[in-house]
Amino acid sequence: MLVVMKHGASETEVRTVVDEIEKLGYEARPMPGKQRTTVGLMGNDGDVDAARIQGLSGVLEVIPVTKPYKQVSREWRDSDTVVELGNGVRFGGEEINIIAGPCAVEGAEDILDIAHQLKEAGATVLRGGAFKPRTSPYSWQGLGEDGLKMLARAREATGMAIVTEALDPDGVDLVAQYADIIQIGARNMQNYPVLRRAGRSNTPVLLKRGMSATINELLLAAEYILAEGNQDVILCERGVRSFDTHTRNLLDLTAIPVVKSLSHLPIIADPSHGTGIRDKVIPMARAAVAAGADGLMVEVHANPPEARSDGAQSLYPDQFQELMDQIPVIAKAIGREVQLPAS
Amino acid sequence: MLVVMKHGASETEVRTVVDEIEKLGYEARPMPGKQRTTVGLMGNDGDVDAARIQGLSGVLEVIPVTKPYKQVSREWRDSDTVVELGNGVRFGGEEINIIAGPCAVEGAEDILDIAHQLKEAGATVLRGGAFKPRTSPYSWQGLGEDGLKMLARAREATGMAIVTEALDPDGVDLVAQYADIIQIGARNMQNYPVLRRAGRSNTPVLLKRGMSATINELLLAAEYILAEGNQDVILCERGVRSFDTHTRNLLDLTAIPVVKSLSHLPIIADPSHGTGIRDKVIPMARAAVAAGADGLMVEVHANPPEARSDGAQSLYPDQFQELMDQIPVIAKAIGREVQLPAS
Amino acid sequence: MLVVMKHGASETEVRTVVDEIEKLGYEARPMPGKQRTTVGLMGNDGDVDAARIQGLSGVLEVIPVTKPYKQVSREWRDSDTVVELGNGVRFGGEEINIIAGPCAVEGAEDILDIAHQLKEAGATVLRGGAFKPRTSPYSWQGLGEDGLKMLARAREATGMAIVTEALDPDGVDLVAQYADIIQIGARNMQNYPVLRRAGRSNTPVLLKRGMSATINELLLAAEYILAEGNQDVILCERGVRSFDTHTRNLLDLTAIPVVKSLSHLPIIADPSHGTGIRDKVIPMARAAVAAGADGLMVEVHANPPEARSDGAQSLYPDQFQELMDQIPVIAKAIGREVQLPAS
Amino acid sequence: MLVVMKHGASETEVRTVVDEIEKLGYEARPMPGKQRTTVGLMGNDGDVDAARIQGLSGVLEVIPVTKPYKQVSREWRDSDTVVELGNGVRFGGEEINIIAGPCAVEGAEDILDIAHQLKEAGATVLRGGAFKPRTSPYSWQGLGEDGLKMLARAREATGMAIVTEALDPDGVDLVAQYADIIQIGARNMQNYPVLRRAGRSNTPVLLKRGMSATINELLLAAEYILAEGNQDVILCERGVRSFDTHTRNLLDLTAIPVVKSLSHLPIIADPSHGTGIRDKVIPMARAAVAAGADGLMVEVHANPPEARSDGAQSLYPDQFQELMDQIPVIAKAIGREVQLPAS
Repeated sequence: MLVVMKHGASETEVRTVVDEIEKLGYEARPMPGKQRTTVGLMGNDGDVDAARIQGLSGVLEVIPVTKPYKQVSREWRDSDTVVELGNGVRFGGEEINIIAGPCAVEGAEDILDIAHQLKEAGATVLRGGAFKPRTSPYSWQGLGEDGLKMLARAREATGMAIVTEALDPDGVDLVAQYADIIQIGARNMQNYPVLRRAGRSNTPVLLKRGMSATINELLLAAEYILAEGNQDVILCERGVRSFDTHTRNLLDLTAIPVVKSLSHLPIIADPSHGTGIRDKVIPMARAAVAAGADGLMVEVHANPPEARSDGAQSLYPDQFQELMDQIPVIAKAIGREVQLPAS
Repeated sequence: MLVVMKHGASETEVRTVVDEIEKLGYEARPMPGKQRTTVGLMGNDGDVDAARIQGLSGVLEVIPVTKPYKQVSREWRDSDTVVELGNGVRFGGEEINIIAGPCAVEGAEDILDIAHQLKEAGATVLRGGAFKPRTSPYSWQGLGEDGLKMLARAREATGMAIVTEALDPDGVDLVAQYADIIQIGARNMQNYPVLRRAGRSNTPVLLKRGMSATINELLLAAEYILAEGNQDVILCERGVRSFDTHTRNLLDLTAIPVVKSLSHLPIIADPSHGTGIRDKVIPMARAAVAAGADGLMVEVHANPPEARSDGAQSLYPDQFQELMDQIPVIAKAIGREVQLPAS
Repeated sequence: MLVVMKHGASETEVRTVVDEIEKLGYEARPMPGKQRTTVGLMGNDGDVDAARIQGLSGVLEVIPVTKPYKQVSREWRDSDTVVELGNGVRFGGEEINIIAGPCAVEGAEDILDIAHQLKEAGATVLRGGAFKPRTSPYSWQGLGEDGLKMLARAREATGMAIVTEALDPDGVDLVAQYADIIQIGARNMQNYPVLRRAGRSNTPVLLKRGMSATINELLLAAEYILAEGNQDVILCERGVRSFDTHTRNLLDLTAIPVVKSLSHLPIIADPSHGTGIRDKVIPMARAAVAAGADGLMVEVHANPPEARSDGAQSLYPDQFQELMDQIPVIAKAIGREVQLPAS
Repeated sequence: MLVVMKHGASETEVRTVVDEIEKLGYEARPMPGKQRTTVGLMGNDGDVDAARIQGLSGVLEVIPVTKPYKQVSREWRDSDTVVELGNGVRFGGEEINIIAGPCAVEGAEDILDIAHQLKEAGATVLRGGAFKPRTSPYSWQGLGEDGLKMLARAREATGMAIVTEALDPDGVDLVAQYADIIQIGARNMQNYPVLRRAGRSNTPVLLKRGMSATINELLLAAEYILAEGNQDVILCERGVRSFDTHTRNLLDLTAIPVVKSLSHLPIIADPSHGTGIRDKVIPMARAAVAAGADGLMVEVHANPPEARSDGAQSLYPDQFQELMDQIPVIAKAIGREVQLPAS
């Protein structure tokens, strides 16, 4: 931690800062400069509360140096975490896996049909919401546990893994009974009771970046899960809020290499929510893989105009096929490989 | 709803859009223009899903006209909602009320002491977190139900109303047992299970705007509460995420008159979280009242550098006194009045 | 400057950083911490280029401590700069001055008529664009030098000072021949040839904050003007780009107290561009003054629906009168006074 | 244009809107809805000023439908514009071209040396600033015309085309004498005198997206150039301002397919400014090409820590070689080809 004194701070003011740091049990090292004095706090173990010092007379600002997260960081664990699912699907290794499916589970046959098509095209994980977080209370909110059962049957029939979202702590336990991956959505990235419950489960977690979460906040949200004992976290970049109205969100692909340098956790991209526009999904899916994503999550619907949610950003099955023709070529270009379903 | 066709869309494409609208049970009105044709959908009752039409051939974009929220809107109810608490405190009328207190309840005596001081200075509602949503899992998370009990005792002792935050659905019920107002924080603005549970309670709700929520999203979150039957919602502007690092958030005071023209619900401002900096709280509190806020929520701590959270933005008690000297003058300048505690 | 080493950086890497700092002629002070070592650079005079060190092996990041601006800062000059115009109008003292007028000068009689009305209502400075920066090349671009002449005649007739915008270096000289204040608009905040030319003029400058300029960038743009010798700079907050579409820009009123603590320069607010909506101008004008603004800049048009630009955000004259009834009361509430035209 | 009336607007109010539209010479088509009436304006040729109607009684909002730009749009010209330089380099066709070079020209020999290395590695266009727009007035501002002469000599020696930035109208003419492409930087995207001068030149223009420019604003800025007669405009995505501090800007790669669907102009990406971090340049360069960029602009310096500007984001020559090994593979994966220097 570095304490920056105001220009012209008195010796007494500097002395008070030094005393306060020493009172907290650390060593203080004052550094006079031409414009101002700074005081370094030495031996910081991450527990120093900057506010203690920020309010002292003569202090301009306090700059944290210690990173706020621990177990998610590369400094804690250098080698990449590989999250491996029951069906052998791996996130975070050399392989790239494609998660695909409709925004929401709409019916038992629908989900089964699309699952077969998606597997055929090369997807290894099936997505589909049973509990839908909807901006309006008047929008359809999903099939609930019935939806989970339909997903489970699709898994049995296809061998695909399934991922679906939980909205509250009890929902986490319920989803964990049916799914291979518990999804925590962007709106719940800082829903700490949900994060903690997911951290106490044995099921891998897909944690989506919040609408305007910084990368530090995303990593700290993951830290909640790891701190409870669950190491199997897959991060997901899905676009952040910005000012241009041409796209629903601004897909921040640079977050992928940034996260990879800070953390050992795998990170995938969701170009469907990240753009909100069907015909931008394929180019941005390609770009995500080229940027180093460990996987993709893509919305596909048998008939998007009839979809009960997110129709405008869902691919048609033949577009998904097109995407699955292109992605392996991009993967190969950077020395990786798309993992295909075991037949 | 207005369907904008691409320049050069064929007559068949326009015809398909018209047919689709009619299939949905509405009337379609095509309007040829020099640059492009548009098709109006008439008789929209708010249930039309734009995605159905967005994907049709020749369609450039679909522009919604019907507002997505209902009960929160001024068109639903023209006169201002006044939320009145048990102790006679009113939000949304002529009065302006000041909510004050520490970020978190830290101990039984501390909260009692500060409550007496705040009441003395003119605050009518006491704030203090018992369940703290913290960015890091290693930060202190609050006293839990013990904190609620301490707040209840402070209420008994002072006659102030109390407001405190709930983090999950069960927490909503628990908080409702102790508090006069259930606070739903910025991170949970779109936590729908929490919103719904609060909507089924009989306790007024303070709903804070999410970190990057649009005003429409804020109103739709409130709509979740009203839709469940609870009309007593107070909105709160607390700053949105932006790019400048001098302040913690960007306090969007224009949201106050914007919300007031769209909705009948009261709206207050939180200049403590809105700025994150102690010495910016007073000017921005004044500005919020000048902009038309129905109240303020301000963090005050007996000794901010010792606060267990948010010390850097908490006022000292004498600064709160200074604020309480200034606010009534501003209120009067715009024809309103600060409601003072019944003695 | 503080150099933060990676966790596990070797002694050799730390040594290299120390050597590099010493080679640059400064003293290096290494500080070992539990998580990582940091190296302080002592005696920084503001000329150290962080990039030199950022690229060295083992370096995590380089944190600047020295502020990049000089003459604009309070550390350079503690007392408030007061910009005084020929007609006695003062920005930056106790007084608050109101700049008002149409977006653009549209005709000789129009500008004269409105000037008389505005002065009558209490404005001391007349605004009106002669060179208009328009987003579209097909929009009307202003009357040019003829407009300047019309403004000059309005000044003669009313005794008001005039402010108008320059778009390029030659335009700066031309505007300086006619106006009391040269306006540099948001789009040109980082137009360095224009800033430098304005810095070499003897005319006060009104510098508007860029669409997404940080406060540091605003101050550095002002530094360009001061560095050339012109100390008479008035800053102007006019809203920054954000994500909500209800308003044209997000008026960042917290920038006012932030700038005032960092710099001695006066700062005013433009609630017309800051909101883009006529009926939000008055509440936000009040809020700006309550936040500590040294003045306001407001668009007023005799008949806004007929205005050639910015009609939707221009006040009607009777609304301006209403604003001029309210502002002095707010000003008085915070111990300041609206300066009125000398009669 | 669509005029949305307030819920409960009177028949007289609707009538007034209809009358006003007819007075402007267009046809009005009222459409009653369950929630509100809307009025369509028919035959819009792009010249209707919404402000005329926005202020009328009973009007809630006015929604523009006609796009504000013309010549840059795909509706004006369907086939892709290909900008071809003197040395045969083409932007906007099947080829992908790589622009590379130091941030600034620092000396005659330096620029010559690096040019040879870059050409060797496969770059066809040499970049290098002679007039540098610097945030601080105390930063080095470039070599001026001497720098242009050094670039010209590097062109002679290597056969590469050269691109360099102009900062003001006279600078545009000067740069046009030496360079193959006039660069207009992000800070000057809405510098209309510069855009107009570039539009009257015969030299191709590289127009960078402003720091927080919407895509519409970028296209309208390009429209200024086309409107003056110069059709050879290459757009450049270089990152927009956002809230995360890990990167200098947020590279908005989705802008590439969005621009390509709206406009016929070529668009390239600048991953150096777009990220601001050396080791993020290569993954984001790959991602840009995968997203469909027509080229890249990359900063390379012989010895980045010694660079006089932007050292932290400049590649080392061997990193550029690595990038040039990867890009052609990505290009090929999507059916395109990197154009190499004629030998």
